[in-house]
Amino acid sequence: MTNHKKTIKIGLFGFGTVGRGLYQLLQRVPEANLVLSRVCVRDVARHQAEAPELIFTTDPLEVLDDPDIDLIVELIDDADAAYRIVTESLRRQLPVVTGNKKMLAHHLPELIKLQQEMQTALLYDASACGSIPVIRNLEEYYDNDLQISVKGILNGSSNFILSKIFNEGMSHAEALRLARELGFLESDPTLDLDGWDSLFKLVILALHAFGVYVNPERVFTYGITHMNDSDILFAREKERRIKLIGLAEKTPDGRLVMGVMPHLISRNKYIYSCEDEFNGVVIKGLFYGKQFLVGRGAGGHPTSSAVLSDISAIRYDYFYRYKRMHSQGGLPEFSNDLSFRVYVRYNTEADLELLKFEDITERYISEETRYVVGRVNLATLHAIRNELAERKIFIAAYPAD
Amino acid sequence: MTNHKKTIKIGLFGFGTVGRGLYQLLQRVPEANLVLSRVCVRDVARHQAEAPELIFTTDPLEVLDDPDIDLIVELIDDADAAYRIVTESLRRQLPVVTGNKKMLAHHLPELIKLQQEMQTALLYDASACGSIPVIRNLEEYYDNDLQISVKGILNGSSNFILSKIFNEGMSHAEALRLARELGFLESDPTLDLDGWDSLFKLVILALHAFGVYVNPERVFTYGITHMNDSDILFAREKERRIKLIGLAEKTPDGRLVMGVMPHLISRNKYIYSCEDEFNGVVIKGLFYGKQFLVGRGAGGHPTSSAVLSDISAIRYDYFYRYKRMHSQGGLPEFSNDLSFRVYVRYNTEADLELLKFEDITERYISEETRYVVGRVNLATLHAIRNELAERKIFIAAYPAD
Repeated sequence: MTNHKKTIKIGLFGFGTVGRGLYQLLQRVPEANLVLSRVCVRDVARHQAEAPELIFTTDPLEVLDDPDIDLIVELIDDADAAYRIVTESLRRQLPVVTGNKKMLAHHLPELIKLQQEMQTALLYDASACGSIPVIRNLEEYYDNDLQISVKGILNGSSNFILSKIFNEGMSHAEALRLARELGFLESDPTLDLDGWDSLFKLVILALHAFGVYVNPERVFTYGITHMNDSDILFAREKERRIKLIGLAEKTPDGRLVMGVMPHLISRNKYIYSCEDEFNGVVIKGLFYGKQFLVGRGAGGHPTSSAVLSDISAIRYDYFYRYKRMHSQGGLPEFSNDLSFRVYVRYNTEADLELLKFEDITERYISEETRYVVGRVNLATLHAIRNELAERKIFIAAYPAD
Repeated sequence: MTNHKKTIKIGLFGFGTVGRGLYQLLQRVPEANLVLSRVCVRDVARHQAEAPELIFTTDPLEVLDDPDIDLIVELIDDADAAYRIVTESLRRQLPVVTGNKKMLAHHLPELIKLQQEMQTALLYDASACGSIPVIRNLEEYYDNDLQISVKGILNGSSNFILSKIFNEGMSHAEALRLARELGFLESDPTLDLDGWDSLFKLVILALHAFGVYVNPERVFTYGITHMNDSDILFAREKERRIKLIGLAEKTPDGRLVMGVMPHLISRNKYIYSCEDEFNGVVIKGLFYGKQFLVGRGAGGHPTSSAVLSDISAIRYDYFYRYKRMHSQGGLPEFSNDLSFRVYVRYNTEADLELLKFEDITERYISEETRYVVGRVNLATLHAIRNELAERKIFIAAYPAD
């Protein structure tokens, strides 16, 4: 693809929010010289009406085996089908752009290997934090410094809900309803609200930041489903906001800890002001210090803009080098052994025993609510994750500053 | 430089804050395989004591003509000398990394031509916004979208002073003294305080964002030197903060307007919370919407980290393609014809006449102070810039929201 003026013919899978956004974006930038040659969808008739000039098909092979097609853009929901499309493309030495974080989080090791074997690029900056070029920057810009942490609001929908609650005084239920109405929630809202979507993104980011692939199942993940009004009141009293945070951090002794959970964020943190459907990522390195990147994390146009950046990068023969994975200094080992302070609202004293508190520094019991503040171990939380959810316990990290 | 494991030998010019920062950074990341082979400075004896194992020289040719050297890093203050070093390096097909914004802002067209002629890369992400990879992102990531604006706090020192005033209640004079004590001001503080440093960065950013080179002399530039306590009071009353902002923006009719001046920033803007020596840049595009990047904009380590990123990029054969300059959609024309709302504190009624207000919507006169709020034209301000300064008038953009 060294001829940069040549028209690039794209085979597109999926014509949902992001696929349609890409279609609209390409109409506005004809000088990009990109053409959607074939589009594979489930329901041809429906999409043909939206875009009469495009050639739709239900047969993946009609796209993959079309000799005219230069690259594949995969924007479907189903992670298993996405994996098949991406691997089939790479095997045909067709470069691929994808936004499927669930698929990536589960298959990155195989996909990295396949890219190398087939000498074919797979780019996926659209998969993490929508329009924020966080993967590209981790890969290309922050790759020499001594990386300390990557932390942020990685899910736009849950952040939208939390913003409405904390800034506009909506109830949890009202905010949820509004997010649903605006189409900000995934078809399965637990993906957003229980932190799974953030988890998938975190796994991708950690690979590029620290060179380590961590299976999603090893990472403690807990969302905002069980948050209630007394948690909101607690946060307000402490002048904090609750944010759903994904965090990957190197400990002083060189291990890599990761987690997705609500945090009580104080006013002096950048993330405190990251609102609505925006995502915000703080990247820390020993020398550059703290970087903060903010951008829209949901919506067809911002995400399709990220897809377009990846398409353009492929045109310039860009590929991820996964430089951190080949770091000569050795890689950090993943670990859940981390003691940290949390706020826990619970129902019965048996709930508390489950958590094996190392200490408790604040305790409140009334007829309406019960909570404690104290230190727990991340490994304990990971082991009892499902019981926490079954018992409708709310838990949030509560850092000192 | 396709052998990425090979040790790269660097010829360094300058051993000030950033040069020393780079030296320290390289000691911490030995796996980067980068060696400072020769360092050209004015005072060898002084620096030899700081870094006994380095080879210092006062003769530029000892560095430039050393056949072992793979690339040049130029980190000196003097813009004219820097220009000679950079052009001499490129003519020898030695890639160069520089942080000299003044030199770049005045010579970019020649330097772009020379890079192309000699097929040799010149990278300079450290020149704008310290550790924030803003040039790289404009060049590589936001290059396909329809760019609307680049706006931000581009100078860490003046922002540090403004933060101390607005957050810690220091007087202007106290804040200035502290900034000087901490070494945050350039040797010539008017570079920071009068907006020239921001201007140079803005010229560089505008070239990468819009593909247009604008001579710094054509851009209205006004700083915070004449700000006084009544301006601070005015900002507080309106619940705003004064920030020194560089702005390049495409008007709806397709022209490019640019300016550096104080802005009264309201609480709902990201830039409002960008404090201390941090820089913050908001980049807007039609599809991705709004991106906000924050990072340290001053100091040896953050800036040397950016220099290291550029060195590493050269190792991977990266070069700026200046894609926007070759945009098929045509380039916007630079213009100062823009009417906008300002706050102006003045001394005599003759001051006011100079500004040729289109309208005045607020007017205050007391024994202590006089100000107006109203609309002026940017072209008028540009024409009377020096008179504004001589008359010690303070002026700040005062947008509606």
